[in-house]
Amino acid sequence: MYNKTIRRCRENPVITIDEVTPTTPNMQVVGIFNCGGTRLNGKTYLVCRTAEILDSPLPDNLTVPYIGPEGKLASQSFKLNNPELDFSDNRIVKNKMNGKVIALTSLSSFRLAVSEDGVHFSIGEKPCMMPNPLLEEWGMEDPRVTSLEDCLYLTYSSVSSHGVGVSLASTKDFQVFERMGMILPPPNKDAVLFPEKINGRYYLLHRPSLEGTIGDSDIWIADSPDLLHWGNHTPLCGCETGNEWESRKIGAGAPPLRVPQGWLVLYHGVDAQQRYSMGALLLDKDDPSIVLSRTSQPILTPEETYERSGFFAETVFPCTAFLEGPDVVIYYGAADNSVCRVDIPLETILE
Amino acid sequence: MYNKTIRRCRENPVITIDEVTPTTPNMQVVGIFNCGGTRLNGKTYLVCRTAEILDSPLPDNLTVPYIGPEGKLASQSFKLNNPELDFSDNRIVKNKMNGKVIALTSLSSFRLAVSEDGVHFSIGEKPCMMPNPLLEEWGMEDPRVTSLEDCLYLTYSSVSSHGVGVSLASTKDFQVFERMGMILPPPNKDAVLFPEKINGRYYLLHRPSLEGTIGDSDIWIADSPDLLHWGNHTPLCGCETGNEWESRKIGAGAPPLRVPQGWLVLYHGVDAQQRYSMGALLLDKDDPSIVLSRTSQPILTPEETYERSGFFAETVFPCTAFLEGPDVVIYYGAADNSVCRVDIPLETILE
Repeated sequence: MYNKTIRRCRENPVITIDEVTPTTPNMQVVGIFNCGGTRLNGKTYLVCRTAEILDSPLPDNLTVPYIGPEGKLASQSFKLNNPELDFSDNRIVKNKMNGKVIALTSLSSFRLAVSEDGVHFSIGEKPCMMPNPLLEEWGMEDPRVTSLEDCLYLTYSSVSSHGVGVSLASTKDFQVFERMGMILPPPNKDAVLFPEKINGRYYLLHRPSLEGTIGDSDIWIADSPDLLHWGNHTPLCGCETGNEWESRKIGAGAPPLRVPQGWLVLYHGVDAQQRYSMGALLLDKDDPSIVLSRTSQPILTPEETYERSGFFAETVFPCTAFLEGPDVVIYYGAADNSVCRVDIPLETILE
Repeated sequence: MYNKTIRRCRENPVITIDEVTPTTPNMQVVGIFNCGGTRLNGKTYLVCRTAEILDSPLPDNLTVPYIGPEGKLASQSFKLNNPELDFSDNRIVKNKMNGKVIALTSLSSFRLAVSEDGVHFSIGEKPCMMPNPLLEEWGMEDPRVTSLEDCLYLTYSSVSSHGVGVSLASTKDFQVFERMGMILPPPNKDAVLFPEKINGRYYLLHRPSLEGTIGDSDIWIADSPDLLHWGNHTPLCGCETGNEWESRKIGAGAPPLRVPQGWLVLYHGVDAQQRYSMGALLLDKDDPSIVLSRTSQPILTPEETYERSGFFAETVFPCTAFLEGPDVVIYYGAADNSVCRVDIPLETILE
């Protein structure tokens, strides 16, 4: 129903793997996609998750990258005919016995992309952030950037054999990053910071990953006195809406945007077939734990070829949104492969 | 190897279901077990998890209790021949299709037990804390009590359809409790507060329940400026030790005890057959994120009849420990059915 007013960028995807120099000569970039962003001095800055794989030098082996104990790139090889291993998901290596992930096939780090016009980007030659060995031996993923009190904060997923948790880092210039620790323990993802204090507190949305037996993968809200420590965890909204497009799980997308009606939150909803679409929430401006309204139909679904096939097919994954005149400008990861842009009138979303 | 010096209380179990008045006449107490405790003015106070079921008035139905939206006891009935439901675990009702828990068969609340001699207890006629409707519709479980800065703090599991998270409450008298919110989002359990600040920060151990594909159910440590908000989540120690008795998962038991050598933490380890035993950790006194040593063999395993059969068989689950002369006095839940006491020389544990 919103299709008339959705304007996907004609240059989509605006960032592709062909433009990215591998971190080391023996790596190959397989995706540059989910990205947190900000606008500074008229320029658009996107911190993009970049996934890279290694060449497998031995036949019948899969060689995968990870971060070794000293913080350096390392590799590990698995025999493809090992009967104890499951390679059926191209993103992971699993132990068949207990179903546990024992390695990721790619390593994600962050690469900075900068643009004068918001469409044509130049991409850093090297990662702007590399994973650390303790909690990110398997990579760092899906950054969101929030501009708050003259600083830029990144919330992102730290992935390791200890699980997937949410870490925080700050920067003023995208050159130097200060790590501020893991703010939400595993299993948690899709954390977005609000861009200002509300009633003297910082707020954040997050998504516990409840793949187990009790609870659903819903969006929660928490508050903090100092950004480092979080409490008052409260369920905000669930995936049990009866809407097929968001029946499996949901997660916040871009950091909340302050609009006259309240806080606008773009989020992703996942259906039973693991198809990622985009919806929106409107939260009360003074008490963001109150959901004022919510889209029953997705605003954006995977339709274009670049959204339908890639490292993870059938995916639109919004992580960045700006208000620009009457429009919301959204950058999203497409099929875990490229970065795309779509402009949607705010009025259309609020309808 | 420690068996010679383990002195189980001759009066074990020291608290049994026969002594507990049901919360309402139509309820039946099926367990009084995992308990947090403190000693005040020479008396021992234990806040005990009490599990109660409802009579099922209709044949071929299972009627289960829960907390309704207004905070009152409510009930729900399931047809035992419903092909979509799985009743094979006597503690839960599951949806066969997606494996999700849709109800618990019992409702847990907290009951206060008080003793002059640490062996004979008188038990409150009514619960001292009842679950709240939002995050505890299915109950509150496994309290730990920490005496800290002239106040008593309870960390416990809040169980609902939103998952199992860790909540905090405070009390000065076990009569009036102040709820302080959910401090760790689901899935998390087995949180214990340290009894004093270390280097100006509060510390807590917790256990994310990673039954999913990435990560193990290990013990983590976190810090806080105010007890309400927690950050710097860091893995402390894992279950991947090669020791069969703790191969499935581990979790902190009693709040840490300050001993000359550091912080002594009693914990439970679970083997592949879901048998719960007790081990111990020694943490550095100035930096509790450093593990100085760890028992390779369990200190206590289910051996007595009251530890081997009950609502959940083969379980010793320590939640309270005091130093008393040369001994550590430990109260533990036995088989999710009763409260027991064991005295073990500190020296034996430290060996």
